[in-house]
Amino acid sequence: MSGIQKNKLNAFYFLMIFTSSGAGYHSESKAKEYKHVCKRACQRAVDRLRAGGLALEAVTAALMELEDSPFTNAGTGSNLNLSGEIECDASIMDGKSLNYGAVGALSGIKNPVLVARRLLSETQKGKLSAGRIPPCFLVGKGAEQWAISHGIPACPTEKMTTKFSLSGYKRNKRKMELAEQVETKRKRQLCGHENNSACLDTVGVVVVDREGNVAAAVSSGGLAMKHPGRVGQAAHYGCGCWAENARDVSLYSTAVSTSGSGEHLIRTMLARECSTAMQAENTHQALLEAMQNKFISSPFLAGEDCVLGGVIVLRCCTCGEAQRSEDIQALLVEFLWSHTTESMCVGYMSAQDSKARTHISRLPPGAVAGQSLAIEGGVCRLGTVSD
Amino acid sequence: MSGIQKNKLNAFYFLMIFTSSGAGYHSESKAKEYKHVCKRACQRAVDRLRAGGLALEAVTAALMELEDSPFTNAGTGSNLNLSGEIECDASIMDGKSLNYGAVGALSGIKNPVLVARRLLSETQKGKLSAGRIPPCFLVGKGAEQWAISHGIPACPTEKMTTKFSLSGYKRNKRKMELAEQVETKRKRQLCGHENNSACLDTVGVVVVDREGNVAAAVSSGGLAMKHPGRVGQAAHYGCGCWAENARDVSLYSTAVSTSGSGEHLIRTMLARECSTAMQAENTHQALLEAMQNKFISSPFLAGEDCVLGGVIVLRCCTCGEAQRSEDIQALLVEFLWSHTTESMCVGYMSAQDSKARTHISRLPPGAVAGQSLAIEGGVCRLGTVSD
Repeated sequence: MSGIQKNKLNAFYFLMIFTSSGAGYHSESKAKEYKHVCKRACQRAVDRLRAGGLALEAVTAALMELEDSPFTNAGTGSNLNLSGEIECDASIMDGKSLNYGAVGALSGIKNPVLVARRLLSETQKGKLSAGRIPPCFLVGKGAEQWAISHGIPACPTEKMTTKFSLSGYKRNKRKMELAEQVETKRKRQLCGHENNSACLDTVGVVVVDREGNVAAAVSSGGLAMKHPGRVGQAAHYGCGCWAENARDVSLYSTAVSTSGSGEHLIRTMLARECSTAMQAENTHQALLEAMQNKFISSPFLAGEDCVLGGVIVLRCCTCGEAQRSEDIQALLVEFLWSHTTESMCVGYMSAQDSKARTHISRLPPGAVAGQSLAIEGGVCRLGTVSD
Repeated sequence: MSGIQKNKLNAFYFLMIFTSSGAGYHSESKAKEYKHVCKRACQRAVDRLRAGGLALEAVTAALMELEDSPFTNAGTGSNLNLSGEIECDASIMDGKSLNYGAVGALSGIKNPVLVARRLLSETQKGKLSAGRIPPCFLVGKGAEQWAISHGIPACPTEKMTTKFSLSGYKRNKRKMELAEQVETKRKRQLCGHENNSACLDTVGVVVVDREGNVAAAVSSGGLAMKHPGRVGQAAHYGCGCWAENARDVSLYSTAVSTSGSGEHLIRTMLARECSTAMQAENTHQALLEAMQNKFISSPFLAGEDCVLGGVIVLRCCTCGEAQRSEDIQALLVEFLWSHTTESMCVGYMSAQDSKARTHISRLPPGAVAGQSLAIEGGVCRLGTVSD
């Protein structure tokens, strides 16, 4: 396992934030921007945790920072759809309550994850008037209206559109028109990544807080030139993100966030599959097998010769140590990332760190994107005062 | 297991269609209507299979019949949302290809399942121009536009609204206004079913065809007075329906369709959980445990004291028999239904039957809806000429 770091920390806060600014192809110039964004997102989560916030709040804060970056395909700067509009997907899951909130094809809201977060917290308040069950998933215009009626401000699409997303739209439109002229019969396209790196650069965050709770969230502007109304994995339960605290049947708390080709991530339910896999003893081997057998070679994607995606995974467990004082508990955090795309940008930070670390993970030389995978990760031992 | 029937058939076609016109509370007068609808739906599927159609076509035909009934909460006669509009969810899954299609919050289309079916078949054609991956899930206005551009005719909402759905809307609106006056603080509501039986009466179908392929589909108008844009389990992968042909790791082909409180069925991913459970040897015991541990007592619904839902489940395997001629294969089909609602209406028919059987399953006397369950089913042995 490359990129391993072992820290022995003994402090009050602990957290491992693990942000991904997407699985795609990152040129050197773009890589720099992504690293900056990841660092800021990590810092936002740490700030929230230092102020006493839990995983759910930290994950939201970090994801909002990623959405606000014009360089990521989420929130501001999202890919435009076939009609030149922005429609965002986002979801969030709380490992403690196992509650979940999601929005799909949402326009006119700057931070889609904020709406997902609010949906999640509304479900925790119990039933609505006349015994109606509160929704956990809202889409389109109805989602926008719900957000506004719950105090989340509207944001005109123009403000969320960037020069980059607009020029990408124009370029893609020309490319499509050209392709449609050429393709008399619709032919199966080969996998390519010329100039469409923005297609897959969606964002995800996983966090563990001082109480050992995990949370995960994900946000995406969706595929460039997608059909209006198309909803991808970022708004799909079990596909975009997953978070589950340890309980009787599962020893480890796990949090997962995915990025990549939405339809492939939906049909393989990759977030939940990786979470389940993480209950095995050897995390590295388990994730490798999950990515190979449940994604690249999944029977749900039979016939697909190019399966693009990436995951960030976190698992942790409390572990007693004889030499430690009884009122100090250690938390063993393992964090891994894996992708079948050319590259993926990740950032991570614990609350004791002064700044975040970032890394652009790339496929080994000669490996074919969509058919091979890269896997890396680390381990971190954190101490906390038990209540 | 009550309601068991054992048939020994030896004919070319085989099919088990298993329709549910929803899990809710069925008065005697309503029960009659539901039984009629179920019979017609079974007949539609059988007609399609006799004409050489596969499971996917049969499941679509049956579901369209159920959608067209003004008595079911799907398609025509769907519950109206908070704004007095119809927004439908539907999905379909093919056990052979494992392909999937879904629509959410869809207005203006008479048969939502037809759009889901078309999305599924479009994904099988490979990529779109310029290498774009075809969508498997579309929502709202975009879904409506996609349907129309793919030759599915528009249908004005007025035509899909019935006297019954409109009067239900008006009654619910008054009830809500009253409740909101009374509830100074929003209080947790107890489970009740006074006059809101239509809330949960969504429809599902599972089919196995002469080649042993399974398919499942589901359609729903959603909760009465739901927020516009709310998407329920019927459009959620793994939650509304599931179909998986037998393959190396799984001995049995399984198909599942769910009905009930959408949010509960989403968070428990009930369709997929039941499908997984059906790989166990004892189907009855496995379904009982799944409904108890993965639904009523699910950790994903901790704190919910009233968990309403129902499932129809089909599993089958080819089994050789020494006394049979070598060119005749037997298919053992087990079909079960289970629900935590007061009642559920089911219908089933094999291609050799002259008419469908229907049944209103009810909770045992004294059992509390949302906390107890009913489970019934049958076994059917069908013969077919092997190719």
